[in-house]
Amino acid sequence: MRILGVDPGMTRCGLGVIESLPGRTVRLVAVDVVRTPADEAPERRLLAILEALEHWIARHDPAVVAVERVFAQHNVRTVTGTAQVAGLAMVAATRAGIPVALHTPSEVKAAVTGNGRAEKAQVQEMVRRILGLEQAPSPADAADALAIAVTQGWRATAAVVPIGGGRPMATAAQRAWAEAAAGTSGRAAAARRRLAR
Amino acid sequence: MRILGVDPGMTRCGLGVIESLPGRTVRLVAVDVVRTPADEAPERRLLAILEALEHWIARHDPAVVAVERVFAQHNVRTVTGTAQVAGLAMVAATRAGIPVALHTPSEVKAAVTGNGRAEKAQVQEMVRRILGLEQAPSPADAADALAIAVTQGWRATAAVVPIGGGRPMATAAQRAWAEAAAGTSGRAAAARRRLAR
Repeated sequence: MRILGVDPGMTRCGLGVIESLPGRTVRLVAVDVVRTPADEAPERRLLAILEALEHWIARHDPAVVAVERVFAQHNVRTVTGTAQVAGLAMVAATRAGIPVALHTPSEVKAAVTGNGRAEKAQVQEMVRRILGLEQAPSPADAADALAIAVTQGWRATAAVVPIGGGRPMATAAQRAWAEAAAGTSGRAAAARRRLAR
Repeated sequence: MRILGVDPGMTRCGLGVIESLPGRTVRLVAVDVVRTPADEAPERRLLAILEALEHWIARHDPAVVAVERVFAQHNVRTVTGTAQVAGLAMVAATRAGIPVALHTPSEVKAAVTGNGRAEKAQVQEMVRRILGLEQAPSPADAADALAIAVTQGWRATAAVVPIGGGRPMATAAQRAWAEAAAGTSGRAAAARRRLAR
């Protein structure tokens, strides 16, 4: 199942497509960050981002578009633009007949790192391991978009393939992260296999 | 010049079209409120509102679309949806090749009532007088959409037709309101003529 994850933002909007397979296996299909200049009119920036979203949806034909849920509390200065971009992603998907899923930042962090308050670097590193990449996706918006897609992929397959005898998915990721951080595993592939079991 | 004013909102989105003529003369063309049910998925609500916006733009072919500028501070609980609807209005206009203007709520209140902190009822009453209507537009979202359009219309023509020897437009509206409130003028048409001078 192909999933497009969107980390909404006016200055940088992360877009990440993954293929989600049974057994928590996920692989990278495409990732990018759409940037719009801060000195351009907001309506032009929004239209440029909408066109990128429509292009990615048409090109990758995802089964679901997963978008970060925006809360007003998070960053008052930028929340208006962030909410607007999230709205565009939701509308672009719906207009294309594709279901939308919303995940809060803490849900995404918990899913990929086991810690709902994880730092950006930890999310980037776990996305690297989970997808078996040589380098962590950068900037953080790219990693966040992939993390949102992975969260959706694991949630969608969780009901079909029970993991670790019913332990919550965060626990498996947390264990992998703790082991990796403790040096018991240095290889991304090993972390990925463990997560995929 | 035809102007579409948009008072963005998820539950109620006000849409108002006016014809703005030289000398501060404005007349009502159309007004409505798009409603979406709170129990529907947000992406479906947003798409329904976008379709209404596109329909109004295609039907009325405005020279400009004026949208209330959304601030995160105003109402934290609903700001995400409000910002998203504003973003859709901005994108729908830009995609149709129509310029977008943003006005803050206090700019709009000051333009039509002379008081940037005016109550909703005062805005509704002044919109009724300015447009020479029998009844005040209701609900408030309808009046607000028309107030946004009037604000834009007066701003656009202000450079062409100086009003009251260069007094700021808020003063003329304020004077009209004060006179009307004091009972020196009971007729909406009189207030409108005074404003249109």
